[in-house]
Amino acid sequence: MSDQQKINIAEQRVQQIIDQVINFWLAQNKAIDTFLNQHPDEVYLQEVAPGRNRAVYVLAHLIATNDGLLPLFGFGEKLFPEIAPLATEGESAVDFELSFKDLKKQWESLNLFLEKRFRELTPEEWLGKHNSVSDADFLLDPQRNKLNVLINRASHQNYHRGQLIFLNERKVLAKLS
Amino acid sequence: MSDQQKINIAEQRVQQIIDQVINFWLAQNKAIDTFLNQHPDEVYLQEVAPGRNRAVYVLAHLIATNDGLLPLFGFGEKLFPEIAPLATEGESAVDFELSFKDLKKQWESLNLFLEKRFRELTPEEWLGKHNSVSDADFLLDPQRNKLNVLINRASHQNYHRGQLIFLNERKVLAKLS
Repeated sequence: MSDQQKINIAEQRVQQIIDQVINFWLAQNKAIDTFLNQHPDEVYLQEVAPGRNRAVYVLAHLIATNDGLLPLFGFGEKLFPEIAPLATEGESAVDFELSFKDLKKQWESLNLFLEKRFRELTPEEWLGKHNSVSDADFLLDPQRNKLNVLINRASHQNYHRGQLIFLNERKVLAKLS
Repeated sequence: MSDQQKINIAEQRVQQIIDQVINFWLAQNKAIDTFLNQHPDEVYLQEVAPGRNRAVYVLAHLIATNDGLLPLFGFGEKLFPEIAPLATEGESAVDFELSFKDLKKQWESLNLFLEKRFRELTPEEWLGKHNSVSDADFLLDPQRNKLNVLINRASHQNYHRGQLIFLNERKVLAKLS
């Protein structure tokens, strides 16, 4: 095999894995979308289990978390700073009523924006540091890169989808009873 | 830059990303471990929310799912075939009482075994097909490879951890009341 062929194979592998990670993230978004389009809006104003968060809050939390990727990846300022506190705090951290309709639109437009920017990043940028790690810390731990952040954020969505899904069965049960 | 340097950089990137994905999987296991070691064993015999699965079942389900990676990746037969049905079915699919103590040991030994085998796979093997996709289907969709399976299985654990964590707060609440 020529050197050029070896370079091509290795570079194609890097690009394939990056594409797979982006697709993994898109698949997690889609699973949330499917869930959000399954019931009348009122259902999402309920708690996912007795005494737990409301589904509408979980959606706001996921938007605030994805929105945080913009400054973290150097894509600019957050699109929805008014719900930014919900990335780390409970529903009472904002002083307005969450609108499920508005949040659904924000979720969709934010994820379209992010996908577009993700597709533009080079392998070097994906494996480069994100903005909340210092140069010195990144030298010590090169795994603190953008690709790793994306895998973890996508999986974080799955963590909350596991909770959201409880609403589903409650509705079915309520219908049956 | 010489061709050899280009080959090295690209090959190092592939290996780095694969290592990151293995570390991501290990981190999800560790998060489950931490949760399993947090309470007296009896707590895990409770349902995670009223009318939901018991935590001990969720653990058996996660073991059965990880155990399925052995034949899927060509590592041999499943270590715990007696709980294999729990990968896809509910608790009633086995006719014995689940032992939390035994399951914790199975979880740990299985994950140690898997990590060892994962470390031995080459990049070519990681991006090669798994055993439940045909050669023809793999040609059509090369993303049906082992690395993608691992990302998804790790995230699947996070989905269920999101549900398990509900137990946590219930215990705290019970103590406070």
